[in-house]
Amino acid sequence: MTFRVHVSLKTTVLDPQGQTIGTALRGHGHKSIADVRQGKYFDIQVADGVEREAAEAEIRQIAGDVLANPVIEEFRVECIE
Amino acid sequence: MTFRVHVSLKTTVLDPQGQTIGTALRGHGHKSIADVRQGKYFDIQVADGVEREAAEAEIRQIAGDVLANPVIEEFRVECIE
Repeated sequence: MTFRVHVSLKTTVLDPQGQTIGTALRGHGHKSIADVRQGKYFDIQVADGVEREAAEAEIRQIAGDVLANPVIEEFRVECIE
Repeated sequence: MTFRVHVSLKTTVLDPQGQTIGTALRGHGHKSIADVRQGKYFDIQVADGVEREAAEAEIRQIAGDVLANPVIEEFRVECIE
């Protein structure tokens, strides 16, 4: 069973890296690009034999504790397989 | 219109960063974590008035040219709004 944890900056937090990418793209002729925001994700495979609810609870705990910084980031967990 | 471009290492390429995260999680007591792979994504907002097909073609070109390294990475594009 594999979960995907998306971690992104909160929408209220500036994303200078994304802004830089956006500026660079426009500078390379992609004039229609209005905005870019960057994020990261983690594909976490859980060992066989763990129940889905328990696994998802553990993944949510891991995401909140160590994968995302709750001050500036938010996360979303989905089961992908 | 916003597209999300997921960039991940090809499955045949080792992901030492993901492995390190997995090892750290197991060391913190999350014994059921079998594997972790990390990736990044870009939420790219396209200016109003651009047709969807043209926008998606441009995003795919950008992803292949500058967001992903085709030697070791692969990408996936989805329209999220």
